[in-house]
Amino acid sequence: MRTEICEMFGIEFPLLAFSHCRDVVAAVTNAGGMGVLGAVAYTPDRLEEELSWIDRQVGGRPYGVDVLVPAKLDLKGTDEAGGGLGAMLAAVPQEHWGFLRDLFERHGVPLPDFEAARRSTARGVGSQVTEQGATDLIDVSLAHPIRLIASALGTPPPRMVEAAKSAGVPVAALVGTAEHARRQVAAGVDLIVAQGGEAGGHTGEISTMVLVPEVVDTVAPIPVLAAGGIATGRQMAAAMALGACGVWCGSVWLTTEEAETPPHVKAKMLAATSRDTVRSRSRTGKPARQLRSAWTDAWEGPDSPGSLGMPLQMVVAEGAMRQIDRVAASGNEGARELANYFVGQCVGLMNTVRPARQVVYDMVQEFTDALDRLNALSGTGSGDGPAPS
Amino acid sequence: MRTEICEMFGIEFPLLAFSHCRDVVAAVTNAGGMGVLGAVAYTPDRLEEELSWIDRQVGGRPYGVDVLVPAKLDLKGTDEAGGGLGAMLAAVPQEHWGFLRDLFERHGVPLPDFEAARRSTARGVGSQVTEQGATDLIDVSLAHPIRLIASALGTPPPRMVEAAKSAGVPVAALVGTAEHARRQVAAGVDLIVAQGGEAGGHTGEISTMVLVPEVVDTVAPIPVLAAGGIATGRQMAAAMALGACGVWCGSVWLTTEEAETPPHVKAKMLAATSRDTVRSRSRTGKPARQLRSAWTDAWEGPDSPGSLGMPLQMVVAEGAMRQIDRVAASGNEGARELANYFVGQCVGLMNTVRPARQVVYDMVQEFTDALDRLNALSGTGSGDGPAPS
Repeated sequence: MRTEICEMFGIEFPLLAFSHCRDVVAAVTNAGGMGVLGAVAYTPDRLEEELSWIDRQVGGRPYGVDVLVPAKLDLKGTDEAGGGLGAMLAAVPQEHWGFLRDLFERHGVPLPDFEAARRSTARGVGSQVTEQGATDLIDVSLAHPIRLIASALGTPPPRMVEAAKSAGVPVAALVGTAEHARRQVAAGVDLIVAQGGEAGGHTGEISTMVLVPEVVDTVAPIPVLAAGGIATGRQMAAAMALGACGVWCGSVWLTTEEAETPPHVKAKMLAATSRDTVRSRSRTGKPARQLRSAWTDAWEGPDSPGSLGMPLQMVVAEGAMRQIDRVAASGNEGARELANYFVGQCVGLMNTVRPARQVVYDMVQEFTDALDRLNALSGTGSGDGPAPS
Repeated sequence: MRTEICEMFGIEFPLLAFSHCRDVVAAVTNAGGMGVLGAVAYTPDRLEEELSWIDRQVGGRPYGVDVLVPAKLDLKGTDEAGGGLGAMLAAVPQEHWGFLRDLFERHGVPLPDFEAARRSTARGVGSQVTEQGATDLIDVSLAHPIRLIASALGTPPPRMVEAAKSAGVPVAALVGTAEHARRQVAAGVDLIVAQGGEAGGHTGEISTMVLVPEVVDTVAPIPVLAAGGIATGRQMAAAMALGACGVWCGSVWLTTEEAETPPHVKAKMLAATSRDTVRSRSRTGKPARQLRSAWTDAWEGPDSPGSLGMPLQMVVAEGAMRQIDRVAASGNEGARELANYFVGQCVGLMNTVRPARQVVYDMVQEFTDALDRLNALSGTGSGDGPAPS
């Protein structure tokens, strides 16, 4: 295919795959798309290992890295600038720990070592969602032959844009409104990912169908990828009819053979319909779409103390969720009810387990079929479909 | 074009236009699409007049009628079966009337004659959203050469389906989930309108991008129209790439020259971005997307008594909104802040006033351009775009 994205990255099919799983990243890159590793969960040392592994798999083919740089953190009273790990912990109200204990008891899930979980989570959060944390990950990434740095949740810090530009690496940013897209372009971003509210993870409320043409018109001639709800080739064709020059998919990889998703979560996703997600603050403190589960029901319910901001809600939630997944893996029913994961509404279309490369091949074929059908309906179909070249 | 919808109705371009305004219905039909008159606001006598007018305008070209048949009314204690108009009024808590009075006072809007408004609204509601009311409107409609009856909010009553079928008129139903689509097909519906959560009016939460392919796969070979967020030809091309054989648009007509929309509301829509809508129960008792305004803010706010069910919330809201529009028309600022209207997220794409026929012509051209672009990107573009034929 001949889109700006194919030219920018030297790829055959303008499909970018966001994944926390290095196997998915390498598989998509090797199948003709481009994998983008979600680095937020990694320490710099671990990221170094992951990227070295990917380098060995892809033989010089392009891949990227995604970091999370929130524009605004809710660090009231935590003295984050002073390195206040303890302060961050102290800032979580006792009410929230109490709510968590009750929730675990009600579902028959043994309590984790909360103190250890809190410390490790606070440390992780400190290195993940702060500017310093993101900068460390970017420094590691730029020492590898990456072809893209993507950032979510706000305009990238000038230092990040400068470092990427002097390394010749394009910068992409995820946006949920046309206004945010305008700001990202002003901050020097090379590529906009317009992500509709049906997407998994942190997301706004404007749907992909409306957001993509709005953003395309707003930032032209900057290229735009469409994201949100896209798991098939016909949706990819739709996104490109809207003016995108490619797509960014995250959810669809979560049920692939390679995915990092725990088996009990993968089973939930395969069974879920498109109604089974909810946009909730209960995992990170910012609205993020995820599987609806006993966890989200409890936090959104009448007895909830309410979610804290980011990153404090992550301090509360992430240690708890690790324990839930650990216990669910051994068959605990209550833990399985609580377990959830970030995923978009397209979870309703994710009904089989396939290798990641097969997902790419299927999307290529579905894209071609959708375009053939459109041409036939509009009265110009030759019967010979265009083949991605 | 050659879609099942074009063949079913003998139209050139598979664009159905839902509107409460007879001028829009006739204009779209005469421009090569098909208008569908929203009949819910009309008495049977008034509907008779409107349809006779349309008959004179369209010279035998096809048009349709849409009625609202809610599957479930919240008539607890109102003895609706006994014709309990008074009971329906009595069932509205005093708290809600009080909230309304305060809201009007706070915005400097003179109070309407609430008693008269209540009686006329309750009478209107009684004839509008009940099965008997819908049946009366259908009887009037079937005496005209209509080519489609559409129903929203639940499976159509068997009597409606039978009457339409014996008149040779196809029945369409709006759905927001694949499961509802399955039920509609079981009830004998000929055409499904899959309406995403970004749509104006009563709507679910699944986005058009995800819902359309789901519904298409669920009800095949029943034809599916896509609705929700669609106001341009590139979105129409996107919807058809998803598997729809045409589109159903409602919002886009509200800023046309012909539209029934009051000028102060039209001005709000032209200025609105895609962020300026909200899905709220505050007008009808069921979640309906509309312009965000001081009205929706108040009903969704902390001092709200909460919306009642359908139809009681309509009894509260519709008389109030008529007064708001009346007062807003004379320049009252508070009333203009309160004024709102049902509209989808595509309001952000509605930035100019055009004649309805021009909207159709523009969508034809944009559709062609989008398809040309897709073909060019995929490497098979000839440069000569397909023309709708």
